[in-house]
Amino acid sequence: RISASLIEPDGGKLVELFVKESDKEAKINQASNLPTVRLSKIDIQWVHVLSEGWASPLKGFMRESEFLQALHFNSLRLDNGSIVNMSVPIVLAIDDAQKSRIGSSTAVALVDENDDFVAILSSIEIYNHNKEERIGRTWGTTAPGLPYVEEAITPSGNWLIGGDLEVIRPVEYDDGLDRFRLSPAELRDEFDRRNADAVFAFQLRNPVHNGHALLMTDTRQRLLDMGFKNPVLLLHPLGGFTKSDDVPLSWRMKQHEKVLEDGVLDPETTVVSIFPSPMHYAGPTEVQWHAKARINAGANFYIVGRDPAGMSHPVEKRDLYDADHGKKVLSMAPGLERLNILPFKVAAYDKSKSKMAFFDSDRAQDFLFISGTKMRTLAKNGESPPEGFMCPGGWKVLVEYYESVAQAENGRRPNPVIASS
Amino acid sequence: RISASLIEPDGGKLVELFVKESDKEAKINQASNLPTVRLSKIDIQWVHVLSEGWASPLKGFMRESEFLQALHFNSLRLDNGSIVNMSVPIVLAIDDAQKSRIGSSTAVALVDENDDFVAILSSIEIYNHNKEERIGRTWGTTAPGLPYVEEAITPSGNWLIGGDLEVIRPVEYDDGLDRFRLSPAELRDEFDRRNADAVFAFQLRNPVHNGHALLMTDTRQRLLDMGFKNPVLLLHPLGGFTKSDDVPLSWRMKQHEKVLEDGVLDPETTVVSIFPSPMHYAGPTEVQWHAKARINAGANFYIVGRDPAGMSHPVEKRDLYDADHGKKVLSMAPGLERLNILPFKVAAYDKSKSKMAFFDSDRAQDFLFISGTKMRTLAKNGESPPEGFMCPGGWKVLVEYYESVAQAENGRRPNPVIASS
Repeated sequence: RISASLIEPDGGKLVELFVKESDKEAKINQASNLPTVRLSKIDIQWVHVLSEGWASPLKGFMRESEFLQALHFNSLRLDNGSIVNMSVPIVLAIDDAQKSRIGSSTAVALVDENDDFVAILSSIEIYNHNKEERIGRTWGTTAPGLPYVEEAITPSGNWLIGGDLEVIRPVEYDDGLDRFRLSPAELRDEFDRRNADAVFAFQLRNPVHNGHALLMTDTRQRLLDMGFKNPVLLLHPLGGFTKSDDVPLSWRMKQHEKVLEDGVLDPETTVVSIFPSPMHYAGPTEVQWHAKARINAGANFYIVGRDPAGMSHPVEKRDLYDADHGKKVLSMAPGLERLNILPFKVAAYDKSKSKMAFFDSDRAQDFLFISGTKMRTLAKNGESPPEGFMCPGGWKVLVEYYESVAQAENGRRPNPVIASS
Repeated sequence: RISASLIEPDGGKLVELFVKESDKEAKINQASNLPTVRLSKIDIQWVHVLSEGWASPLKGFMRESEFLQALHFNSLRLDNGSIVNMSVPIVLAIDDAQKSRIGSSTAVALVDENDDFVAILSSIEIYNHNKEERIGRTWGTTAPGLPYVEEAITPSGNWLIGGDLEVIRPVEYDDGLDRFRLSPAELRDEFDRRNADAVFAFQLRNPVHNGHALLMTDTRQRLLDMGFKNPVLLLHPLGGFTKSDDVPLSWRMKQHEKVLEDGVLDPETTVVSIFPSPMHYAGPTEVQWHAKARINAGANFYIVGRDPAGMSHPVEKRDLYDADHGKKVLSMAPGLERLNILPFKVAAYDKSKSKMAFFDSDRAQDFLFISGTKMRTLAKNGESPPEGFMCPGGWKVLVEYYESVAQAENGRRPNPVIASS
């Protein structure tokens, strides 16, 4: 399934953790006799991630040795001595009651909120979940208000359970977007079908504006200039957990479709797909995960911007991470040597040309920086951005989204929001 | 200077950063024309560490790329692609006023508390000192009360300055113990002189009792059994900053001398020397530094105990680190593959034999565990431990130390302390 023209997955082989159709009944019988662990929504997103091999060569939720290596070294050493990147712990937490129910069983059945079987976790190892240390080492802060921490770690149990994962029922969301959820194997097939000789990935969790489009078009040109014949863009919005003030996936996907329809990006050389991972907002630590997972999907070029996976400090008035650290850490990260890191050029609105263009410091006065906050504020107020900032169809989707939010809030339209400049 | 029989230093060459005698005057002249940075006591300990090559191949205080690699990966990638371990940031902080005094100078003079020149730092790089992130990633907590943080980080400036170090005046302490402060090069010479074919290092910051002695004697026997002809012990007490309730270096050295005098350890096969590093109490992160530095001094075996470099959580009622994590992290750490890790066997007081012996779970009732707390409490109260726990001469030093503390406290003898069992 792995084409010679695409970058090798981490560990040399793409992991897929699905039970064969012919074994399914036996596995369901086995699961029926096992203690169960009920999965949260985010746990299921991680089952999805693991099952399709985004975290190759991981074969299930981390055991302690993997957890410790991720926390301390952002990488795993394989049996053959080679190193793969792994910066974010992919772990499953259980509480005291679940642990005592598991007792001396060597396997557990993982079930969804309806108690339907999702997977079996076998050869399990249960170990201490030191939340403070996990948070400190992953985020570099233990300040209250980190979205993933509050959603998924603080309420979770004091134990972690690792083991080998066998997925009985592939994860689906039935939200009309499953057709966009291509697995790494499916993406590799698609890139092969298109005869891609270079794949450049663009991770995003925000609406696409023409600055992004310019960057992607420019990147393709740079790759052509480097001698590649058919560089293909993987436009890869993150589909798992995001914080409450991010634009939800369904609206982002509508917006991305409009951008493609409007011809801002060339559908011939662009694959739009959803990356199923939840978002940590862990800056330089998380950007490594975002890059590593795309290697497994066949990407050998990764575009990295300012402050990737960053956010404001939850308590102090500053960004949580230095805006340049993500790019720097990524370029030095163990296990990512094979990946070509393409730093973002800064695009801004060029008033002299009424379009997005790469910032030119020689005529700085011509440029207007429209931050994400500013963009959201304009859309919330139903106002229009400068012409050429985003294709009109895409902008309309954003305005509709914020209208729907306003309507949901007791039918009252909130007062216009003041953008910080 | 590097014997073929000893392990190679990290990076292949032992770094020494002293100005040659013939260049000294010129360097002092140069320093006189540079902006100055005044060093704290702990900064000077780090100058000592760097100057003698304990942190080889580091050639000075870390620049940002080294700082980020230490924080995120606990290791540095060298120009030739190889990896060395480096888990603890070795950095120099400056404040806004110092930074503005430095201005656009590319070098600074480092001075001691009397404004005497210690070193020149050149090709400098000044970057942001995000204390919270540094602490979170190094300790896995940002809880108040971490000794090194309170002593050296919280009061320090908001910038870090990295660069190449040239030491004008080698660091000395004039405390009567400088003769014990052998550099890695001097230790390597000593091991060569003794024809050591294996060197096993024992890091400590506590008095030596007979359990330690048993362990070290047993380790030597194991190495002989493995076929080594002359394994030499590096008994290597830490000499830099320690927390206020640790026994101070001068008293520990008196105690270690008594232990050697009393014949508990064989002086023929033991080298006692002082490791100049300050103590972080950063558990699994710090134990890597302790091990890596000993490679540079020629040790190819490292004894690791329960909860190395650990302490109680400064706020919660628990140990800060899982007692097994140090050993586990050390065994997986990048850049330490060449070092043989020897896990500690547990020794306890065997009541049936009136001596320290390896714990035997089949006759657990015969054993008494005497914790560090218990030991300190007995010594504070002027009481004696069970016969055979520590050589009498060594114990007497401890009792004298606590008497001197009591006398210093307004001449009043404190009430006897109750040991937690």
